[in-house]
Amino acid sequence: MNTLDDHHGSAAAERLHTHRQQFPALGNKGYFNFGGQGPLPQAARLAIQQAYDYIQQEGPFSGQALDWIVAQVAETRQAIAAELSVSPDTISLTESVSVGCNIALWGIDWRSGDHLLLSDCEHPGIVAAAHQLRQRFGVEVSTFPLESTLNGGDPVAIVAEHLRPTTRLVVVSHILWNTGQVLPLKEMVQVCHTHASRPVAVLVDAAQSVGVLPLDLPDLGADFYAFTGHKWWCGPDGLGGLYVHPQACEQLHPTFIGWRGIVSNEFGIPIGWKPDGRRFEVATSAFPLCAGLRTALQLHQTWGTAMERYQRICALSQYLWQQLQSLSGLQCLRQNPPQAGLISFQIGDFSSPISNRQHHVRLVQWLEAQHLLVRLILAPHCVRACVHYFSLESECDRLVAALEEFLNSIDQGSI
Amino acid sequence: MNTLDDHHGSAAAERLHTHRQQFPALGNKGYFNFGGQGPLPQAARLAIQQAYDYIQQEGPFSGQALDWIVAQVAETRQAIAAELSVSPDTISLTESVSVGCNIALWGIDWRSGDHLLLSDCEHPGIVAAAHQLRQRFGVEVSTFPLESTLNGGDPVAIVAEHLRPTTRLVVVSHILWNTGQVLPLKEMVQVCHTHASRPVAVLVDAAQSVGVLPLDLPDLGADFYAFTGHKWWCGPDGLGGLYVHPQACEQLHPTFIGWRGIVSNEFGIPIGWKPDGRRFEVATSAFPLCAGLRTALQLHQTWGTAMERYQRICALSQYLWQQLQSLSGLQCLRQNPPQAGLISFQIGDFSSPISNRQHHVRLVQWLEAQHLLVRLILAPHCVRACVHYFSLESECDRLVAALEEFLNSIDQGSI
Repeated sequence: MNTLDDHHGSAAAERLHTHRQQFPALGNKGYFNFGGQGPLPQAARLAIQQAYDYIQQEGPFSGQALDWIVAQVAETRQAIAAELSVSPDTISLTESVSVGCNIALWGIDWRSGDHLLLSDCEHPGIVAAAHQLRQRFGVEVSTFPLESTLNGGDPVAIVAEHLRPTTRLVVVSHILWNTGQVLPLKEMVQVCHTHASRPVAVLVDAAQSVGVLPLDLPDLGADFYAFTGHKWWCGPDGLGGLYVHPQACEQLHPTFIGWRGIVSNEFGIPIGWKPDGRRFEVATSAFPLCAGLRTALQLHQTWGTAMERYQRICALSQYLWQQLQSLSGLQCLRQNPPQAGLISFQIGDFSSPISNRQHHVRLVQWLEAQHLLVRLILAPHCVRACVHYFSLESECDRLVAALEEFLNSIDQGSI
Repeated sequence: MNTLDDHHGSAAAERLHTHRQQFPALGNKGYFNFGGQGPLPQAARLAIQQAYDYIQQEGPFSGQALDWIVAQVAETRQAIAAELSVSPDTISLTESVSVGCNIALWGIDWRSGDHLLLSDCEHPGIVAAAHQLRQRFGVEVSTFPLESTLNGGDPVAIVAEHLRPTTRLVVVSHILWNTGQVLPLKEMVQVCHTHASRPVAVLVDAAQSVGVLPLDLPDLGADFYAFTGHKWWCGPDGLGGLYVHPQACEQLHPTFIGWRGIVSNEFGIPIGWKPDGRRFEVATSAFPLCAGLRTALQLHQTWGTAMERYQRICALSQYLWQQLQSLSGLQCLRQNPPQAGLISFQIGDFSSPISNRQHHVRLVQWLEAQHLLVRLILAPHCVRACVHYFSLESECDRLVAALEEFLNSIDQGSI
């Protein structure tokens, strides 16, 4: 496997080590939490600082500083759009992936009795938002089972079976945050859009796919695709976005509203929405973050194409998954090699789920004490490790060795 | 006037100059746009950087980094609450004042025919949000006239006259962003709460009052008080908050929802809201900003009490207002000395409003070229200059001299 050669002191390994040095967070730990938050490149941190300095130098509230901020926002929208193979006017900048999901969820003119269908693997925050739509608009909310398709089954057929004549929106993640499964999104969208009763719109939680998969959103066809810059893109926390398909834009109402989304006349009276994705943006944000996210995206581009980075993620996660197979007392949720960067596993006595839960909690804490960062997932209860394109085989080896030590300690009752 | 002595090289003037040196933006310009954005103290910028560094050092996504972020958020909530004389559990952190207003506007379980009453001086973004409530819920929206009370009239009587049996919410700014008028908020709230048909809730846009007025929110009695850290508090853009009165909290539904607002059970299933203001927060934000805002608040506290800072703002704005009286061809909107830091004025031929509009636009640009930053307001069409407690008499003098030059140039047709 020619890309996985960091053991060997080759030129490729040296290049990788140089690349990694641009992420200060990677220097003192084994990092496996890209699905939670990516490490911020030093250049991104500097770009944020420089943006603060420029704004203070020229403003902060001056014609020149405000023009500069408008340009920063436009360039960021453009950089994001290029990553997703879409036009910049389809992109709204948001504070987080959750805000992007909420814009889509609340922007539909729900009628009592409308049906909202979510997968059973969506993030609790999104599930809670759906429940609130039930309370506020009388929307019927139900789920379709994807967790059980990790090792077999057809997500396309399952979503099709759960569509109703009243279904207006399906919510699904592109990559499931708990099990790491990559869904056949294009086919799932197609089955929703061609539903017999009426076309059903699809909102995608892209928290785990943006920055991992090479993406061509027009080809996937989803109506709404909500993402964040601070996970796999390694941008600063507090900046993400929402893609809205051009045909879905006019039907989606802005909900939280402020000066950024509206057009006012010469008397300051609001007379309409901005013609593009800006209509879903609200008001003042932490504008210096824009420079940080763009800088992070540029850094990734110095490491091959999106496809090459994705292939490297898969090669590394398959390497780690393979190693984990050799550990007794540990079971990967996925029986086949992973298709992306997330690997979830369980440990302990598989006949006693409750004791496993305690083991998982302890394991995450114990690994953190060894400077190995993974996270706990509650449903299904498991531990999740992520690898990025710049992860190291040797890092994976260290994690596997530590897991082995922990598993031995359980056996001996010493942890 | 013993606090306004920066002309005189006294110890007080030296102290003021030292204080001002902590705001890099003040070094190269005359700054009069605090109502747009305050200058960020150097210490706040450093605190933000240090937060980024700490998070990268310990995480970013680790138990230790996440605990630290939770503590940062809690300390920031506490620091904000102390400024407003309220309990921290009444405070929700938001991205902006507009988001805070939207949380209150959308959180009411509106029924068709309910009445929403806004003043005629509210920000266009808030007006647009109100119109959207009309479209989504059939809410009746109307305004009550406050602009005309700047030089006489009784805002309390006017709001009382415009309440209807169906009125559920009144929206009003504490200090009007266009004319700078300070409203008798406590009395206005009282008249709404004791409305004959039923108590009417009050949402306050506090964009221009927080960081200016000494505030005791329980005494004012408003139900919702939305503010931002990046104007008069001089914090970073992208961090503000919403106060929700304890009695109003249970009736207000969260709208945009994410992991920060919910309580989940051991299986990750959402089972309720956080018991306090956190229920209105959504998900990941730019957490390093918290340290920046706290640092800015601490810096202000080194300069006397909130009352002393407010008195100095008034003394300076009255000084500037007085100087402006002497300029022919310029008219302050307010005929009496200002009660806060905003001064709005018009220039030109008062019999020809259209030519005045062009003069206002040119004036703002011309002043920026002289490194004097003021802003244009569209309704009423005017120019707004703001002074803060750390503004200088000499800065006001420079602005007045420049205005005089501009007015002379208009007379001579050379601008």
